[in-house]
Parts: sequence; C-alpha cells; structure tokens
Amino acid sequence: MEKNDPNMLRNENIAKEKAEDDANRGSNDRFPVTVLGMGPMGRALAGAFLKNGHPTTVWNRTPGKADRLAAQGAVNAATAAEAAAASPLVIVCVLDYNAVQTILESAGAALKGRTVVCLTADTPERAREAAAWAAARGVDYLDGAIMTPTVTIGSPAAVVLYSGPEAVFEAHRGTLASIGGTATHLGTDPGRAAAYDIALLDLFWTTMSGYAHAVALAGAEHIAASDFAVHAQGIAAIMPAIMVDLARQVDEGRYPGDQSNLFSAAAAMDHIIHASQARGIDVNVLNAAKAFVQRAIDEGHGGDSFSRLTEMLRKPSA
Amino acid sequence: MEKNDPNMLRNENIAKEKAEDDANRGSNDRFPVTVLGMGPMGRALAGAFLKNGHPTTVWNRTPGKADRLAAQGAVNAATAAEAAAASPLVIVCVLDYNAVQTILESAGAALKGRTVVCLTADTPERAREAAAWAAARGVDYLDGAIMTPTVTIGSPAAVVLYSGPEAVFEAHRGTLASIGGTATHLGTDPGRAAAYDIALLDLFWTTMSGYAHAVALAGAEHIAASDFAVHAQGIAAIMPAIMVDLARQVDEGRYPGDQSNLFSAAAAMDHIIHASQARGIDVNVLNAAKAFVQRAIDEGHGGDSFSRLTEMLRKPSA
Ligand SMILES: NC(=O)c1ccc[n+]([C@@H]2O[C@H](COP(=O)([O-])OP(=O)(O)OC[C@H]3O[C@@H](n4cnc5c(N)ncnc54)[C@H](OP(=O)(O)O)[C@@H]3O)[C@@H](O)[C@H]2O)c1
Ligand SMILES: NC(=O)c1ccc[n+]([C@@H]2O[C@H](COP(=O)([O-])OP(=O)(O)OC[C@H]3O[C@@H](n4cnc5c(N)ncnc54)[C@H](OP(=O)(O)O)[C@@H]3O)[C@@H](O)[C@H]2O)c1
Repeated sequence: MEKNDPNMLRNENIAKEKAEDDANRGSNDRFPVTVLGMGPMGRALAGAFLKNGHPTTVWNRTPGKADRLAAQGAVNAATAAEAAAASPLVIVCVLDYNAVQTILESAGAALKGRTVVCLTADTPERAREAAAWAAARGVDYLDGAIMTPTVTIGSPAAVVLYSGPEAVFEAHRGTLASIGGTATHLGTDPGRAAAYDIALLDLFWTTMSGYAHAVALAGAEHIAASDFAVHAQGIAAIMPAIMVDLARQVDEGRYPGDQSNLFSAAAAMDHIIHASQARGIDVNVLNAAKAFVQRAIDEGHGGDSFSRLTEMLRKPSA
Repeated sequence: MEKNDPNMLRNENIAKEKAEDDANRGSNDRFPVTVLGMGPMGRALAGAFLKNGHPTTVWNRTPGKADRLAAQGAVNAATAAEAAAASPLVIVCVLDYNAVQTILESAGAALKGRTVVCLTADTPERAREAAAWAAARGVDYLDGAIMTPTVTIGSPAAVVLYSGPEAVFEAHRGTLASIGGTATHLGTDPGRAAAYDIALLDLFWTTMSGYAHAVALAGAEHIAASDFAVHAQGIAAIMPAIMVDLARQVDEGRYPGDQSNLFSAAAAMDHIIHASQARGIDVNVLNAAKAFVQRAIDEGHGGDSFSRLTEMLRKPSA
C-alpha cells in the first residue's frame, strides 16, 4: 500500500479524528463542527449542532448572515480556511457544487486530514467529482442530501441520505445525529445520495409546480388557498399507495390499465388545460405533461396505466 | 310559484323519492341505484352499492363490461333509458361530459323525476351546464367528484366532494354513504365540486408526471423503482405542511423566502434538467416548470418563496 493510497489516508484520518473526538469529549463532551454556507439550510444545521452542545464554527461568503448564531455561541470565522481549520468535521451546505468547489479550493490545505460532508444538492456526477477531488488531497468525503425543509432540522422529521465510505459515515454518525430524524447510508458510491436526491427533487419540484398552479386555478374559482390546501392534503395522502403500485409495475415491466388508464388521464388533463386557459392561466407545464401522455396514446398505449410513461421516458423515441 | 319552477319540481321529486325509498325499505331495506358507465370507477361504485345491499342496475355503452357484477346480482340493462327507469337515483360515471351529455340525452324522458348524481370529472362550466339541462327537464341534479382511486371505493379511504342543492344531497346521503369514506357537500353551486376537482387533479396529474419522470431518472442510476418508491413516500409526507404554509402566504399576499427561495429552486431544477439530459431523458415538463421560475427571478422575485408563482400565474404577464 503506498503512502498516498486514499484508503490509507482515510484510515489515518479516522484514527486521528477518533482521538480528537476523545480529547474533545474530555473538555466539552461534543465533537466540534464547522458549517460552511449560511443560507436557510446552513443556518438550520449550525443551529442544530449548537443546540446539541457542539462547538460550532460557521462561515458564509457574504458576511452578516450568522449574527444570530454567533449570539447563540457559534464562532464566526473570517475565511473558509479559518473555519475549516477549526473543526475535524466540515459541513458544506450551499447553492450548488460550483459554490462547493470555490469554497473547498479556497479552504485548501486547511482541509487536509479533515472530513468534509457535503450537504449540497447537485448531480451524482458532481458528487463523484467532489469525492475524487477530496481523495486526491487527503480529505475524507461523505456526500449527503437533505430531503426535508429547514423547520425539520434538529427534529425527528428530518431525513438525510448519505453515501461514501462506510467508515467515514460510522465515524461521524453520532455527530450527524444532531441534524435529527433519519440518517440513511445508501452505500459507498459517493454519487448514490445525489442519485436519489435528484430523482426525489424531480418529484418534489414538479409537485410544487403543480401545487402553485392548482392554487391559482382554485383561486380563479374563488376558492381561498387555505381552503384548497385542506383538500390538497388528500392528494398527498393517496400518493404513497399509488407510488408503490406504479413502481411495482415499472419493475415488472407490466403496465395494466385496469384501474385507471392513459385515455382517462388525457381527458382529465384536457379539462384542466381548458379550464386554465378559460381563466387566463399559463398552461405550459400541463401542455408538456399532456403531450407526453398523448405520445403514449399515439403509440398505442392508451389502455395502459400511467407507469407506461416511465418506460417511454427511459427509451426516448427517435 | 309556477308549476315548472325547478325548486318546486325538485321538492316534488324528493317527496316522491322519499316515498319510494320507504316502499323499497319495506321489501328490501335498501334504495335502488343505477350506475351508468362501467369503466374502472363505474364498476367500483356499482360493486360498493351491491355489497351494501342496494338493488343495482348497470349499463355501459360497450356491452360485456359488467358481466362480473351481473354474476354478483346487478341487473344489466340493455339501454341507458332502461337503466335510468330502474332506479330513482342514477349515477353517471364516464370519461367526460361529452359522454355524460350523450348518455343523458339518450336516457331522455326516463330521467324525469329522478335524481342524477354525476361523478364524472370535468370543468365547473360543464357541471353548471349539466345542472341547467337537468333543471329544465325536471331532473334533480347533484354534481360530484371522486378524489381517490378505485381501490378506496367502499372503504373508509374514499373521498367524494359534492355540490348542488342541499336537499338533494341530504335525500341521498344515506345511499351515497355506500361509496364509503368522506362525503363533503361544498355548497349549492353545482360547479363547486368540479372547481375543487380540476384544481386537485391539476396537482394530482402534475405530481404523477413528476413521479413517472423521477422513477425514470432513478432507473438511469440503477435504482429500482420499488427502492425509489420507499424514499418518494417521504416527499408525499412533507407536502401537507408545505402546502399549508404556501397557501397561507398566497392568502396573505406575502411571499417570504427566508426558509427557501426561488434562486435555490432554480438551481435544483437545473441539476435535474442537466442530469436528465445527460441520461437521454425528455425534459419538456421540467423545462416548462423551470422557465416559469426563471420568469419570476427575471422579474425580481428570486428571493421570494415558491408561492410567488401562484401570484404570477394569476396575473399572466403581457
Ligand atoms: N432550504 C431548504 O428548505 C432546503 C431543503 C433541503 C435541501 N436544501 C439544500 O440545501 C442547500 C442550501 O440551501 P439553502 O436553502 O440554505 O440556500 P441556497 O439559496 O440554496 O444557498 C445559499 C447559500 O449558498 C451560498 N453561495 C451561493 N453561491 C456561492 C458561491 N459561488 N460561493 C460561495 N457561496 C455561495 C450563499 O452565500 P451568500 O450568502 O454569500 O450568497 C448561501 O450561503 C441547497 O443545495 C438546497 O437544495 C435546502
Ligand atoms: N379510475 C380512477 O382511479 C378514478 C379516480 C377518480 C375519479 N375517476 C373519474 O371517474 C370517471 C370514470 O373513470 P374510469 O376510470 O371509470 O374510466 P374512464 O376511462 O374515464 O371512462 C370509461 C367509461 O366512459 C365511457 N364512455 C366514454 N366515452 C363515452 C361516450 N361517448 N358515450 C358513452 N360512454 C362513454 C366508457 O364506455 P365504453 O366502455 O363503451 O368505452 C366507459 O364506461 C372519470 O371522470 C374519472 O376521472 C376515476
């Protein structure tokens, strides 16, 4: 095994962190943590670490965003390098991996021997690149994705997915537990958490678009948004069973339309489109969704269930 | 009050139906019901009435779809008129209101003095037209919308919204209870149930499009659909609280982005679009959704929450 073998470096780092952890427990009982990025989510994470007694150092590109956290005891570092130097565990939660890259590059040598946990949403490719960047610099790296809103952080409702070396996850699991809720390690491929993340965010942001549109359509019929929200919760309630059903059909490669089919979906989508147009409401998203259903019908799949669309998306037509 | 005043006709009809109901209870204890339309939902409805002991007559344009129900005791009528003549309560559950209109016209005089409950999805305009058509012919009319899948029918999970004359709803409430779950009367405007229905279906079908896409994207990263579905349920779980929050912002006309803003949403949507394109997956729906978010950013609303989009949809730009 060569001196710069990433696994060896990783094991050395972990041993060093364990020792630092023990040392810290002596004086403070809690592992120090650095959070880079003070957007809404970075602030929520830092707040949860602080609340759980971790010495917490924070940094943000634009100053002034961590004043409230500083008043609660967080150390506000002047540079990303200074912040990274303060703790063996460094969390990065910013807009995207362009920002992550800029920040990690600027922290530079201060990261050596530390663990970076990147809780920033981006593609699996970017997560794998970041892991390779870290490995080449003797930095342990875990990738993660936060699947719940800021208000859930530090509560049992938080959901975070991780991927990357199991040993790194295990070494920091206790500290990361301050984020709350469920922490799932999805495997060693550093891109795995991001793979789930983009697909889950695909569902989330498309749903959010549908909701924003639905509230506008209800409003055009003088339904108050809050009255609509009460009934909209019923749609969220039926989704889990439908999602499980459709997933089974996709995995089995069978798309039986005996309970609901694409002809019926197309008719419903047409009503929504016409009703929206009659009320002067933009229908671009719905038109795109309907066009895809129509393509399935035109290709002879009208009697199939909605899960047929996944099969078609996987095999774009020529 | 004139002889052909619709309210008077309605009251006469209700009195007649109450008497027929009493007479029927003598022999059978349950009110007879007719279901027109034997698609998946029509069959589920007829099955629930049968199971609850209602003498049930069914009809479908294309014969042969009710054979199993006939074996369970349903009477299979040869024409819509014959089916309508068989019961004072006639339920219509078909593809859309073009189909409803064709069926009601063909049933013609057989409907006079009866109650039609239309459980077909369409626009509020079509529901109001159908109510006017019925009123002009001495037919009591309730409009309804089924918000849950066929499997829920006859179970506590069913959700049905109704609107139209309160007295008609009250007269048939007991019979309609066989559909199961929650029955909500939303008011006397016959278009009210359809107004909720199109907005709820807007959310539903957009969500379904997002789910079909997300499963394809996960699949491109070798995530089995059923594994993805487990995590996707987490997205359904966070929606109710988010929907209530966004609705409150819309009703208040304030769109604070302090927990999550449109810049962040746009970045996430870009990752999903790029990741999809890199995997050869169609991105038309996402592009349309992202373009709308971009418009909000371009108009200076990037720091606002997603609820800003509802405000913009209500006021299409010139
Ligand atoms: N908010 C939520 O509810 C939520 C939920 C789940 C996951 N997430 C994820 O968490 C991550 C952070 O989200 P967020 O809501 O906190 O805010 P965000 O708006 O996505 O990101 C804002 C943060 O990114 C920083 N930033 C942007 N470009 C930068 C650059 N080039 N260099 C350095 N820093 C840069 C900002 O610094 P400045 O202040 O200097 O601009 C700020 O700290 C995102 O990946 C998001 O998808 C958020
Ligand atoms: N399935 C569900 O999970 C579900 C859930 C909630 C609400 N709904 C609503 O329930 C209604 C019925 O849905 P569905 O799933 O049962 O099936 P559907 O596919 O929407 O409708 C099929 C039924 O419509 C009939 N039909 C279509 N065009 C007709 C015409 N011109 N004249 C006469 N009949 C015609 C069909 O008759 P033929 O057999 O002769 O073609 C068949 O009985 C829809 O409005 C739907 O949105 C369904």
